[in-house]
Amino acid sequence: MSYYRIGYEEIRGLCRESFLRTGFTREESEIITDVILLSDLYGIESHGVQRMAMYHRGIKSGMMKVENQPEVVFETPVSATIDAKSAMGQLAAHKGMELAIEKAQKSGMGMVVVRNSNHFGIAGYYAKMASDKGLLGLAFTNSGAIMVPTYGRMPMIGSNPIALAMPADPYDFLFDASTTVVTHGKLEVYKKLDKPMPEGWTIDENGEGTVEAAKVIDNIAGRKGGGILPIGGSQETSGGHKGYGYGMMAEIFSSIMSMGLTSNYCLRDGVDGCSHGFLAIDPGIFGDREEIKKHLSAYLEEIRGSEKAEGAERIYTHGEKEAEALKDRMEKGILLNGGTLEEIRDICKELDIDFKLPLKG
Amino acid sequence: MSYYRIGYEEIRGLCRESFLRTGFTREESEIITDVILLSDLYGIESHGVQRMAMYHRGIKSGMMKVENQPEVVFETPVSATIDAKSAMGQLAAHKGMELAIEKAQKSGMGMVVVRNSNHFGIAGYYAKMASDKGLLGLAFTNSGAIMVPTYGRMPMIGSNPIALAMPADPYDFLFDASTTVVTHGKLEVYKKLDKPMPEGWTIDENGEGTVEAAKVIDNIAGRKGGGILPIGGSQETSGGHKGYGYGMMAEIFSSIMSMGLTSNYCLRDGVDGCSHGFLAIDPGIFGDREEIKKHLSAYLEEIRGSEKAEGAERIYTHGEKEAEALKDRMEKGILLNGGTLEEIRDICKELDIDFKLPLKG
Repeated sequence: MSYYRIGYEEIRGLCRESFLRTGFTREESEIITDVILLSDLYGIESHGVQRMAMYHRGIKSGMMKVENQPEVVFETPVSATIDAKSAMGQLAAHKGMELAIEKAQKSGMGMVVVRNSNHFGIAGYYAKMASDKGLLGLAFTNSGAIMVPTYGRMPMIGSNPIALAMPADPYDFLFDASTTVVTHGKLEVYKKLDKPMPEGWTIDENGEGTVEAAKVIDNIAGRKGGGILPIGGSQETSGGHKGYGYGMMAEIFSSIMSMGLTSNYCLRDGVDGCSHGFLAIDPGIFGDREEIKKHLSAYLEEIRGSEKAEGAERIYTHGEKEAEALKDRMEKGILLNGGTLEEIRDICKELDIDFKLPLKG
Repeated sequence: MSYYRIGYEEIRGLCRESFLRTGFTREESEIITDVILLSDLYGIESHGVQRMAMYHRGIKSGMMKVENQPEVVFETPVSATIDAKSAMGQLAAHKGMELAIEKAQKSGMGMVVVRNSNHFGIAGYYAKMASDKGLLGLAFTNSGAIMVPTYGRMPMIGSNPIALAMPADPYDFLFDASTTVVTHGKLEVYKKLDKPMPEGWTIDENGEGTVEAAKVIDNIAGRKGGGILPIGGSQETSGGHKGYGYGMMAEIFSSIMSMGLTSNYCLRDGVDGCSHGFLAIDPGIFGDREEIKKHLSAYLEEIRGSEKAEGAERIYTHGEKEAEALKDRMEKGILLNGGTLEEIRDICKELDIDFKLPLKG
């Protein structure tokens, strides 16, 4: 597949304009665009501009409701519960983490849960909102069920990512990962390439290992059984029950606490209905913020500087690859594949937006 | 190896007496014993009475300081930092979670971090302290480095368990797992049995996969390189960077926030110095406690009742196996192997305790 470099400001303007013309306010359009583009800046193609077509379809079908405003339905000095009312996930989530940060700045800790929401993009965006303010940030979400619990054959848990961000030099620590071995997007890539997947990623409708991406995608969509394995794989020997446990942790911090739909009820009958959770903690409630930041920075440096495995060139700490990708994309433009560009062209045509992207090979 | 059933009250009295005679108060002896025995009641032999000899050696060598009292050195209405001053890990940790619970009951959330501590037993014990009070409980600890970061060859991170407990019917949800594929204790079992370990658990001093338990144990002890892999294994393809990320999460919630020793400095020169973290959250700060509990219980029931993989008999939810083991052990006694019984005999002899355990085959 051909890739093109598109200047960050150009694609930003275009995405923002598309949301404006769909009925969002300028501020809302900025937020949604910002979340989507941070994913591309971080080199995570699956959750970036590639998803514009999906969001556009969701808005048209009424899955995401442009006019609805997420509402705080329960609140204490350290917490809140938000009913997103099917608004864009990015808007509900941004409001959620903003509120968690505000509470953490006042009380030391803040936690906000959100229900009846939609796909919110990368969890790392919201965790980063907290670390940008000098706080520890955690973001959780559930999602349409794709993870099969250990010894099961039906997907009952979502990809359920957990993201954690914490201030450090020269890069903030930023861990953001699904609790499945891989995400659904990875399967889509293998399906497009018509290549067998590595062993240990998925199981078929009988609960047995399979490397056929197309079949698994079809099975998940049709609820025929089978799906993606939790981190650690299908057996307890390799720690599969642990990945299943992390998936449950994300579920508890999102759908359970918010009384939202659990993953096995999400994405049915044209409604997503997923839930999120956001936790912000001020390191200053344990001691000196700057000393704690230095302490983490020194540890990360020691890990990066430790001896490498035979044949390995580098040991990364979480957030390092993202920081490097961001620098690259801001300088040279973000990378979009030809298929995504065609989708963007279609959206522009539909919304009567002038499509003049400077394509760089 | 032969196993014996020992009545719970009998072994409890014996352990308590041994700590009393080592200089601990009655209350302290109760707490330490309680933590150790919950592990055996849950069927987790590695962290139970089997560790009595290790604790006894640590107390004699001065690694654990009987006379030292963990001290709160920093405090806010929602948080505290405790300097354990090399006291028994169980005592420092129990005090930590007790304080976190107290703060959560007053403010909705409470988080306490502990530094300069010792091995605290099973993380699940402390998470359960919170769920026993109707709260969500999280417990973290770091420990002597055994986990090799992705693409590295030196252990830089501990087994770093994360435990989460949350009220549910008929069993509370209780997830407690190391962030490595397996714990060091599992390697010890394979060494004793002189059996090759399953592939994918450990790497040798060159960073390459090995199934030789004795070598890995020796390498870790001698800091020669190699160690245990994070959940997800050695490669990013199978999600190894995710297990490494969860290990870092436990590190941030313990040693980083408390300004304690990071795992790569723990267990040196006769000092453990590990750190812990405890978080308690009242579900009532998000809505109705009872409704949230029912919501989680219903979801767990749906998971347990979902279709099984070919050949699988049951799908477990976390905490279910522990609840069943506890019922069995309380009725029939806890299971101790012959070697552990001999160690207990030696301790009793040394402390002049009458050893009259009713052995049941």
